[in-house]
Amino acid sequence: LQTVIRLKTTEMRYRVVAHAKIHVEYLRINFYDHDMEISLHTFLAEKATFLKKVDFSRKGSVDEDIEDIVNNINSHDDYFTTSSCSGRLVAFVEVANQRKKNCEWLFKSHKAVDLITFRKVLDSYFQTLQSSSGKTSGVIWLKFEPLIIHVRCRSLQAAKQLLNLALNSGCRNSGVMIGKRLRLTVALRSTLTLALPLQHTDQMQMLSDEYLEFLFQTISIKFTENDQLRSKYQ
Amino acid sequence: LQTVIRLKTTEMRYRVVAHAKIHVEYLRINFYDHDMEISLHTFLAEKATFLKKVDFSRKGSVDEDIEDIVNNINSHDDYFTTSSCSGRLVAFVEVANQRKKNCEWLFKSHKAVDLITFRKVLDSYFQTLQSSSGKTSGVIWLKFEPLIIHVRCRSLQAAKQLLNLALNSGCRNSGVMIGKRLRLTVALRSTLTLALPLQHTDQMQMLSDEYLEFLFQTISIKFTENDQLRSKYQ
Repeated sequence: LQTVIRLKTTEMRYRVVAHAKIHVEYLRINFYDHDMEISLHTFLAEKATFLKKVDFSRKGSVDEDIEDIVNNINSHDDYFTTSSCSGRLVAFVEVANQRKKNCEWLFKSHKAVDLITFRKVLDSYFQTLQSSSGKTSGVIWLKFEPLIIHVRCRSLQAAKQLLNLALNSGCRNSGVMIGKRLRLTVALRSTLTLALPLQHTDQMQMLSDEYLEFLFQTISIKFTENDQLRSKYQ
Repeated sequence: LQTVIRLKTTEMRYRVVAHAKIHVEYLRINFYDHDMEISLHTFLAEKATFLKKVDFSRKGSVDEDIEDIVNNINSHDDYFTTSSCSGRLVAFVEVANQRKKNCEWLFKSHKAVDLITFRKVLDSYFQTLQSSSGKTSGVIWLKFEPLIIHVRCRSLQAAKQLLNLALNSGCRNSGVMIGKRLRLTVALRSTLTLALPLQHTDQMQMLSDEYLEFLFQTISIKFTENDQLRSKYQ
Protein backbone atom coordinates (compact mmCIF):
# COMPACT_ATOMS: atom_id res chain seq x y z
CA LEU A 1 0.00 0.00 0.00
CA GLN A 2 2.85 2.39 0.84
CA THR A 3 4.38 1.77 -2.58
CA VAL A 4 1.05 2.46 -4.22
CA ILE A 5 0.62 5.65 -2.20
CA ARG A 6 4.19 6.75 -3.00
CA LEU A 7 3.49 6.09 -6.64
CA LYS A 8 0.27 8.07 -6.34
CA THR A 9 2.13 11.03 -4.84
CA THR A 10 4.63 10.98 -7.71
CA GLU A 11 1.69 10.88 -10.14
CA MET A 12 0.15 13.87 -8.38
CA ARG A 13 3.38 15.79 -8.71
CA TYR A 14 3.57 14.96 -12.42
CA ARG A 15 -0.03 15.94 -12.81
CA VAL A 16 0.47 19.31 -11.13
CA VAL A 17 3.60 20.03 -13.18
CA ALA A 18 1.88 18.89 -16.37
CA HIS A 19 -1.16 21.07 -15.73
CA ALA A 20 1.01 24.03 -14.83
CA LYS A 21 2.84 23.65 -18.16
CA ILE A 22 -0.40 23.45 -20.06
CA HIS A 23 -1.64 26.52 -18.22
CA VAL A 24 1.46 28.53 -19.16
CA GLU A 25 1.15 27.50 -22.80
CA TYR A 26 -2.53 28.39 -22.85
CA LEU A 27 -1.81 31.79 -21.32
CA ARG A 28 0.78 32.36 -24.01
CA ILE A 29 -1.54 31.19 -26.74
CA ASN A 30 -4.46 33.13 -25.34
CA PHE A 31 -2.60 36.43 -25.73
CA TYR A 32 -0.67 35.54 -28.87
CA ASP A 33 -2.26 32.69 -30.79
CA HIS A 34 -0.22 30.58 -33.20
CA ASP A 35 -0.81 33.30 -35.80
CA MET A 36 -0.05 36.15 -33.38
CA GLU A 37 -3.74 36.69 -32.70
CA ILE A 38 -4.52 39.07 -29.83
CA SER A 39 -7.65 38.14 -27.84
CA LEU A 40 -10.76 39.90 -29.14
CA HIS A 41 -11.33 41.44 -25.72
CA THR A 42 -7.83 43.00 -25.55
CA PHE A 43 -7.98 44.17 -29.16
CA LEU A 44 -11.40 45.80 -28.86
CA ALA A 45 -10.26 47.60 -25.69
CA GLU A 46 -7.21 48.99 -27.54
CA LYS A 47 -9.42 49.94 -30.48
CA ALA A 48 -11.88 51.81 -28.26
CA THR A 49 -9.05 53.67 -26.52
CA PHE A 50 -7.41 54.58 -29.81
CA LEU A 51 -10.53 55.73 -31.64
CA LYS A 52 -11.58 57.79 -28.61
CA LYS A 53 -8.14 59.44 -28.58
CA VAL A 54 -8.43 60.26 -32.28
CA ASP A 55 -11.86 61.81 -31.78
CA PHE A 56 -10.39 63.89 -29.00
CA SER A 57 -7.14 65.21 -30.44
CA ARG A 58 -7.63 65.22 -34.18
CA LYS A 59 -11.35 65.79 -34.54
CA GLY A 60 -12.32 66.40 -38.15
CA SER A 61 -8.87 65.42 -39.39
CA VAL A 62 -10.01 62.35 -41.34
CA ASP A 63 -10.03 63.47 -44.98
CA GLU A 64 -13.59 63.82 -46.30
CA ASP A 65 -13.03 61.52 -49.31
CA ILE A 66 -11.74 58.69 -47.16
CA GLU A 67 -14.27 58.75 -44.33
CA ASP A 68 -16.39 55.93 -45.82
CA ILE A 69 -13.40 53.59 -46.12
CA VAL A 70 -12.18 54.43 -42.62
CA ASN A 71 -15.66 53.72 -41.21
CA ASN A 72 -15.90 50.52 -43.24
CA ILE A 73 -12.54 49.25 -41.91
CA ASN A 74 -13.45 50.24 -38.34
CA SER A 75 -16.73 48.29 -38.54
CA HIS A 76 -14.67 45.05 -38.54
CA ASP A 77 -13.69 43.59 -35.17
CA ASP A 78 -10.23 42.58 -36.42
CA TYR A 79 -9.17 46.03 -37.65
CA PHE A 80 -8.96 49.71 -36.79
CA THR A 81 -7.38 52.64 -38.64
CA THR A 82 -4.60 54.60 -36.93
CA SER A 83 -3.96 57.26 -39.62
CA SER A 84 -4.97 58.04 -43.19
CA CYS A 85 -4.64 60.45 -46.11
CA SER A 86 -7.00 60.37 -49.09
CA GLY A 87 -4.28 61.44 -51.54
CA ARG A 88 -2.87 64.90 -52.21
CA LEU A 89 -0.75 67.19 -54.35
CA VAL A 90 2.06 68.94 -52.48
CA ALA A 91 4.81 71.44 -53.31
CA PHE A 92 7.73 72.16 -50.99
CA VAL A 93 11.30 73.43 -50.89
CA GLU A 94 13.61 70.50 -50.16
CA VAL A 95 16.12 71.41 -47.48
CA ALA A 96 19.32 69.32 -47.65
CA ASN A 97 19.52 66.44 -45.11
CA GLN A 98 16.03 67.19 -43.79
CA ARG A 99 13.01 64.92 -43.75
CA LYS A 100 10.06 66.13 -45.82
CA LYS A 101 8.08 67.27 -42.79
CA ASN A 102 10.87 69.72 -41.92
CA CYS A 103 10.96 71.25 -45.42
CA GLU A 104 9.28 74.54 -46.34
CA TRP A 105 5.77 73.83 -47.56
CA LEU A 106 4.28 75.92 -50.37
CA PHE A 107 1.11 74.04 -51.18
CA LYS A 108 -1.14 71.10 -50.21
CA SER A 109 -4.38 70.06 -51.90
CA HIS A 110 -6.54 66.95 -51.52
CA LYS A 111 -8.39 67.77 -54.77
CA ALA A 112 -7.12 68.25 -58.33
CA VAL A 113 -6.26 71.90 -59.00
CA ASP A 114 -5.81 73.80 -62.24
CA LEU A 115 -2.56 75.38 -63.35
CA ILE A 116 -3.82 78.94 -62.73
CA THR A 117 -4.35 78.21 -59.01
CA PHE A 118 -0.93 76.61 -58.73
CA ARG A 119 0.79 79.50 -60.55
CA LYS A 120 -0.69 81.96 -58.04
CA VAL A 121 0.84 79.95 -55.18
CA LEU A 122 4.26 79.91 -56.85
CA ASP A 123 4.12 83.62 -57.74
CA SER A 124 3.16 84.59 -54.21
CA TYR A 125 6.00 82.40 -52.86
CA PHE A 126 8.58 84.11 -55.07
CA GLN A 127 7.27 87.55 -54.08
CA THR A 128 7.75 86.60 -50.42
CA LEU A 129 11.24 85.31 -51.23
CA GLN A 130 12.27 88.64 -52.79
CA SER A 131 11.04 90.64 -49.81
CA SER A 132 12.61 88.41 -47.12
CA SER A 133 16.30 88.53 -46.28
CA GLY A 134 16.92 85.08 -44.75
CA LYS A 135 15.32 83.05 -47.52
CA THR A 136 15.19 79.26 -47.77
CA SER A 137 17.38 77.95 -50.57
CA GLY A 138 16.75 74.61 -52.26
CA VAL A 139 14.93 72.66 -54.94
CA ILE A 140 11.17 73.13 -55.28
CA TRP A 141 9.46 69.75 -55.68
CA LEU A 142 5.97 68.96 -56.86
CA LYS A 143 4.60 65.60 -55.69
CA PHE A 144 1.40 63.68 -56.05
CA GLU A 145 1.03 61.40 -53.02
CA PRO A 146 -1.67 58.74 -53.42
CA LEU A 147 -3.91 57.48 -50.61
CA ILE A 148 -2.31 55.93 -47.55
CA ILE A 149 -4.14 54.19 -44.71
CA HIS A 150 -2.60 52.58 -41.63
CA VAL A 151 -4.67 49.73 -40.23
CA ARG A 152 -3.95 47.95 -36.94
CA CYS A 153 -4.76 44.22 -37.24
CA ARG A 154 -5.73 41.70 -34.55
CA SER A 155 -3.77 38.78 -36.03
CA LEU A 156 -1.24 37.91 -38.71
CA GLN A 157 -4.03 36.12 -40.59
CA ALA A 158 -6.17 39.30 -40.52
CA ALA A 159 -3.14 41.33 -41.68
CA LYS A 160 -2.52 38.86 -44.50
CA GLN A 161 -6.12 39.10 -45.74
CA LEU A 162 -6.04 42.90 -45.83
CA LEU A 163 -2.56 42.98 -47.36
CA ASN A 164 -3.54 40.59 -50.17
CA LEU A 165 -6.65 42.67 -50.88
CA ALA A 166 -4.43 45.77 -51.06
CA LEU A 167 -1.75 44.20 -53.28
CA ASN A 168 -4.36 42.78 -55.68
CA SER A 169 -6.24 46.08 -55.95
CA GLY A 170 -3.16 48.04 -57.04
CA CYS A 171 -1.66 49.16 -53.69
CA ARG A 172 1.60 47.41 -54.53
CA ASN A 173 3.71 49.41 -52.07
CA SER A 174 1.70 48.09 -49.11
CA GLY A 175 3.29 46.20 -46.23
CA VAL A 176 2.97 45.27 -42.58
CA MET A 177 4.66 47.35 -39.89
CA ILE A 178 5.65 45.61 -36.63
CA GLY A 179 5.38 47.72 -33.49
CA LYS A 180 5.91 47.33 -29.78
CA ARG A 181 4.92 43.93 -28.40
CA LEU A 182 4.78 42.76 -32.04
CA ARG A 183 1.64 44.79 -32.79
CA LEU A 184 0.78 44.53 -36.51
CA THR A 185 -0.22 47.49 -38.70
CA VAL A 186 -0.86 47.24 -42.44
CA ALA A 187 0.19 50.33 -44.41
CA LEU A 188 -1.94 50.55 -47.58
CA ARG A 189 0.22 52.39 -50.13
CA SER A 190 -0.27 52.67 -53.87
CA THR A 191 2.31 53.18 -56.61
CA LEU A 192 0.46 56.09 -58.30
CA THR A 193 3.39 58.39 -57.61
CA LEU A 194 4.45 61.51 -59.48
CA ALA A 195 7.40 63.54 -58.19
CA LEU A 196 9.47 66.07 -60.04
CA PRO A 197 11.84 68.95 -59.26
CA LEU A 198 10.41 72.19 -60.70
CA GLN A 199 13.42 74.46 -60.22
CA HIS A 200 15.93 75.70 -57.67
CA THR A 201 14.72 78.70 -55.64
CA ASP A 202 17.66 80.67 -57.13
CA GLN A 203 16.67 79.83 -60.71
CA MET A 204 14.08 81.29 -63.06
CA GLN A 205 11.16 79.09 -64.12
CA MET A 206 12.30 76.61 -66.78
CA LEU A 207 9.09 74.76 -67.58
CA SER A 208 7.01 75.97 -70.53
CA ASP A 209 3.28 76.72 -70.22
CA GLU A 210 2.65 73.90 -72.67
CA TYR A 211 4.46 71.37 -70.47
CA LEU A 212 2.82 72.63 -67.27
CA GLU A 213 -0.64 72.25 -68.88
CA PHE A 214 0.28 68.67 -69.83
CA LEU A 215 1.66 68.04 -66.32
CA PHE A 216 -1.50 69.26 -64.58
CA GLN A 217 -3.65 67.15 -66.92
CA THR A 218 -1.54 64.13 -65.91
CA ILE A 219 -1.94 65.04 -62.23
CA SER A 220 -5.70 65.29 -62.73
CA ILE A 221 -5.64 61.74 -64.18
CA LYS A 222 -3.68 60.58 -61.10
CA PHE A 223 -6.40 62.02 -58.84
CA THR A 224 -9.03 60.12 -60.87
CA GLU A 225 -7.05 56.87 -60.69
CA ASN A 226 -6.65 57.44 -56.95
CA ASP A 227 -10.45 57.87 -56.61
CA GLN A 228 -10.97 54.61 -58.50
CA LEU A 229 -8.50 52.84 -56.23
CA ARG A 230 -10.22 54.21 -53.15
CA SER A 231 -13.63 53.07 -54.37
CA LYS A 232 -12.36 49.46 -54.28
CA TYR A 233 -12.21 49.63 -50.48
CA GLN A 234 -15.72 51.01 -50.01
CA LEU B 1 -6.73 -0.39 -1.73
CA GLN B 2 -9.20 -0.69 -4.62
CA THR B 3 -10.13 2.97 -4.15
CA VAL B 4 -6.46 3.93 -4.19
CA ILE B 5 -5.85 1.86 -7.31
CA ARG B 6 -8.93 3.33 -9.01
CA LEU B 7 -7.68 6.79 -8.13
CA LYS B 8 -4.26 5.89 -9.47
CA THR B 9 -5.79 4.76 -12.77
CA THR B 10 -7.69 8.04 -13.05
CA GLU B 11 -4.45 9.90 -12.36
CA MET B 12 -2.73 7.89 -15.08
CA ARG B 13 -5.43 8.82 -17.55
CA TYR B 14 -5.08 12.51 -16.63
CA ARG B 15 -1.34 12.23 -16.94
CA VAL B 16 -1.53 10.69 -20.42
CA VAL B 17 -4.07 13.27 -21.59
CA ALA B 18 -2.03 16.08 -20.07
CA HIS B 19 1.18 14.90 -21.71
CA ALA B 20 -0.57 14.43 -25.03
CA LYS B 21 -1.84 18.03 -24.85
CA ILE B 22 1.62 19.33 -24.02
CA HIS B 23 3.02 17.33 -26.91
CA VAL B 24 0.52 18.83 -29.37
CA GLU B 25 1.29 22.36 -28.15
CA TYR B 26 5.01 21.74 -28.42
CA LEU B 27 4.63 20.42 -31.95
CA ARG B 28 2.72 23.58 -32.83
CA ILE B 29 5.27 25.78 -31.14
CA ASN B 30 8.17 23.89 -32.66
CA PHE B 31 7.05 24.79 -36.19
CA TYR B 32 5.63 28.23 -35.42
CA ASP B 33 6.99 29.63 -32.19
CA HIS B 34 5.08 32.28 -30.23
CA ASP B 35 6.60 34.87 -32.57
CA MET B 36 5.98 32.81 -35.73
CA GLU B 37 9.50 31.45 -35.66
CA ILE B 38 10.21 28.64 -38.10
CA SER B 39 12.68 26.02 -36.81
CA LEU B 40 16.26 26.78 -37.86
CA HIS B 41 16.49 23.41 -39.56
CA THR B 42 13.40 24.01 -41.74
CA PHE B 43 14.42 27.58 -42.53
CA LEU B 44 17.99 26.70 -43.53
CA ALA B 45 16.67 23.94 -45.78
CA GLU B 46 14.35 26.44 -47.52
CA LYS B 47 17.19 28.93 -47.79
CA ALA B 48 19.53 26.38 -49.35
CA THR B 49 16.86 25.33 -51.87
CA PHE B 50 16.07 28.94 -52.76
CA LEU B 51 19.63 30.16 -53.13
CA LYS B 52 20.51 27.12 -55.22
CA LYS B 53 17.54 27.86 -57.49
CA VAL B 54 18.68 31.47 -57.90
CA ASP B 55 22.21 30.37 -58.81
CA PHE B 56 20.72 28.01 -61.35
CA SER B 57 18.11 30.05 -63.17
CA ARG B 58 19.16 33.65 -62.77
CA LYS B 59 22.94 33.39 -62.58
CA GLY B 60 24.60 36.77 -62.64
CA SER B 61 21.32 38.62 -62.19
CA VAL B 62 22.18 40.15 -58.80
CA ASP B 63 23.11 43.77 -59.56
CA GLU B 64 26.83 44.39 -59.13
CA ASP B 65 26.38 47.31 -56.70
CA ILE B 66 24.18 45.31 -54.37
CA GLU B 67 26.12 42.02 -54.23
CA ASP B 68 27.86 42.90 -50.95
CA ILE B 69 24.58 43.65 -49.17
CA VAL B 70 22.94 40.53 -50.55
CA ASN B 71 25.91 38.42 -49.35
CA ASN B 72 25.85 40.17 -45.98
CA ILE B 73 22.14 39.45 -45.48
CA ASN B 74 22.57 35.85 -46.62
CA SER B 75 25.36 35.29 -44.08
CA HIS B 76 22.74 35.50 -41.29
CA ASP B 77 20.90 32.31 -40.35
CA ASP B 78 17.59 34.16 -39.89
CA TYR B 79 17.49 35.77 -43.35
CA PHE B 80 17.84 35.17 -47.06
CA THR B 81 17.25 37.47 -50.05
CA THR B 82 14.65 36.46 -52.63
CA SER B 83 15.04 39.36 -55.10
CA SER B 84 16.81 42.72 -55.35
CA CYS B 85 17.51 45.76 -57.50
CA SER B 86 20.31 48.21 -56.71
CA GLY B 87 18.34 51.22 -58.03
CA ARG B 88 17.79 52.35 -61.61
CA LEU B 89 16.61 55.00 -64.03
CA VAL B 90 13.89 53.83 -66.45
CA ALA B 91 11.90 55.33 -69.30
CA PHE B 92 8.81 53.70 -70.78
CA VAL B 93 5.60 54.39 -72.69
CA GLU B 94 2.67 53.95 -70.32
CA VAL B 95 -0.06 51.89 -71.93
CA ALA B 96 -3.52 52.56 -70.47
CA ASN B 97 -4.73 49.97 -67.93
CA GLN B 98 -1.48 48.02 -68.14
CA ARG B 99 0.96 47.26 -65.36
CA LYS B 100 4.42 48.74 -65.83
CA LYS B 101 5.98 45.45 -66.85
CA ASN B 102 3.62 45.32 -69.84
CA CYS B 103 4.49 48.83 -71.02
CA GLU B 104 6.90 49.60 -73.84
CA TRP B 105 10.40 50.05 -72.38
CA LEU B 106 12.76 52.62 -73.89
CA PHE B 107 15.58 52.67 -71.37
CA LYS B 108 17.00 51.09 -68.19
CA SER B 109 20.22 52.04 -66.41
CA HIS B 110 21.62 51.06 -63.01
CA LYS B 111 24.15 53.93 -63.17
CA ALA B 112 23.66 57.69 -63.52
CA VAL B 113 23.68 58.74 -67.18
CA ASP B 114 24.22 62.12 -68.82
CA LEU B 115 21.61 63.94 -70.84
CA ILE B 116 23.40 63.30 -74.17
CA THR B 117 23.10 59.52 -73.70
CA PHE B 118 19.43 59.81 -72.79
CA ARG B 119 18.68 62.07 -75.75
CA LYS B 120 20.13 59.50 -78.14
CA VAL B 121 17.75 56.90 -76.73
CA LEU B 122 14.74 59.19 -77.16
CA ASP B 123 15.78 60.26 -80.69
CA SER B 124 16.24 56.68 -81.78
CA TYR B 125 12.83 55.79 -80.32
CA PHE B 126 11.10 58.58 -82.25
CA GLN B 127 12.86 57.56 -85.46
CA THR B 128 11.54 54.02 -84.98
CA LEU B 129 8.07 55.44 -84.30
CA GLN B 130 8.04 57.35 -87.58
CA SER B 131 9.06 54.33 -89.60
CA SER B 132 6.59 51.87 -87.98
CA SER B 133 2.92 51.80 -88.87
CA GLY B 134 1.36 50.19 -85.75
CA LYS B 135 3.00 52.46 -83.21
CA THR B 136 2.41 52.47 -79.43
CA SER B 137 0.56 55.56 -78.26
CA GLY B 138 0.82 56.87 -74.70
CA VAL B 139 2.68 59.02 -72.21
CA ILE B 140 6.47 58.64 -71.95
CA TRP B 141 7.52 58.48 -68.28
CA LEU B 142 10.95 58.90 -66.75
CA LYS B 143 11.38 57.28 -63.31
CA PHE B 144 14.14 56.87 -60.81
CA GLU B 145 13.51 53.71 -58.82
CA PRO B 146 15.65 53.42 -55.66
CA LEU B 147 17.05 50.15 -54.30
CA ILE B 148 14.64 47.38 -53.38
CA ILE B 149 15.54 44.14 -51.60
CA HIS B 150 13.17 41.35 -50.58
CA VAL B 151 14.36 39.39 -47.55
CA ARG B 152 12.70 36.20 -46.24
CA CYS B 153 12.79 36.14 -42.41
CA ARG B 154 12.76 33.18 -40.01
CA SER B 155 10.56 34.85 -37.38
CA LEU B 156 8.43 37.91 -36.73
CA GLN B 157 11.11 39.10 -34.31
CA ALA B 158 13.78 38.81 -37.03
CA ALA B 159 11.49 40.64 -39.48
CA LYS B 160 10.92 43.38 -36.89
CA GLN B 161 14.66 43.90 -36.36
CA LEU B 162 15.35 44.21 -40.09
CA LEU B 163 12.30 46.40 -40.66
CA ASN B 164 13.28 48.82 -37.89
CA LEU B 165 16.82 49.02 -39.27
CA ALA B 166 15.32 49.81 -42.69
CA LEU B 167 12.84 52.43 -41.44
CA ASN B 168 15.51 54.18 -39.35
CA SER B 169 18.02 54.26 -42.21
CA GLY B 170 15.64 56.03 -44.60
CA CYS B 171 13.81 53.13 -46.27
CA ARG B 172 10.48 54.48 -45.07
CA ASN B 173 8.38 52.62 -47.67
CA SER B 174 9.51 49.25 -46.28
CA GLY B 175 7.09 46.65 -44.99
CA VAL B 176 6.54 42.96 -44.36
CA MET B 177 4.84 40.76 -46.95
CA ILE B 178 2.95 37.67 -45.73
CA GLY B 179 3.05 34.68 -48.05
CA LYS B 180 1.78 31.12 -48.11
CA ARG B 181 1.82 29.37 -44.71
CA LEU B 182 2.40 32.86 -43.19
CA ARG B 183 5.97 33.08 -44.55
CA LEU B 184 7.40 36.53 -43.80
CA THR B 185 9.35 38.64 -46.31
CA VAL B 186 10.58 42.17 -45.59
CA ALA B 187 10.55 44.48 -48.64
CA LEU B 188 13.22 47.17 -48.15
CA ARG B 189 11.97 50.19 -50.11
CA SER B 190 13.19 53.78 -49.94
CA THR B 191 11.30 56.98 -50.67
CA LEU B 192 13.96 58.45 -53.02
CA THR B 193 11.48 58.48 -55.88
CA LEU B 194 11.41 60.72 -58.93
CA ALA B 195 8.74 60.14 -61.58
CA LEU B 196 7.57 62.53 -64.26
CA PRO B 197 5.73 62.41 -67.58
CA LEU B 198 8.01 63.73 -70.35
CA GLN B 199 5.47 63.99 -73.16
CA HIS B 200 2.81 62.07 -75.08
CA THR B 201 4.19 60.03 -77.99
CA ASP B 202 2.02 62.17 -80.33
CA GLN B 203 3.48 65.45 -78.98
CA MET B 204 6.68 67.31 -79.70
CA GLN B 205 9.26 67.64 -76.91
CA MET B 206 8.15 70.33 -74.43
CA LEU B 207 11.04 70.35 -71.94
CA SER B 208 13.81 72.89 -72.48
CA ASP B 209 17.49 71.90 -72.55
CA GLU B 210 17.98 74.01 -69.46
CA TYR B 211 15.34 72.07 -67.51
CA LEU B 212 16.59 68.69 -68.76
CA GLU B 213 20.14 69.54 -67.61
CA PHE B 214 18.72 70.46 -64.19
CA LEU B 215 16.63 67.25 -64.15
CA PHE B 216 19.59 65.00 -64.94
CA GLN B 217 21.67 66.73 -62.26
CA THR B 218 18.87 65.98 -59.78
CA ILE B 219 18.76 62.35 -60.96
CA SER B 220 22.51 62.12 -60.46
CA ILE B 221 22.03 63.33 -56.86
CA LYS B 222 19.34 60.65 -56.39
CA PHE B 223 21.83 57.98 -57.52
CA THR B 224 24.36 59.33 -54.98
CA GLU B 225 21.78 59.35 -52.17
CA ASN B 226 20.83 55.81 -53.16
CA ASP B 227 24.51 54.76 -52.93
CA GLN B 228 24.72 56.30 -49.45
CA LEU B 229 21.57 54.47 -48.39
CA ARG B 230 22.95 51.20 -49.72
CA SER B 231 26.22 51.65 -47.86
CA LYS B 232 24.27 51.61 -44.56
CA TYR B 233 23.46 47.93 -45.13
CA GLN B 234 27.01 46.84 -45.88
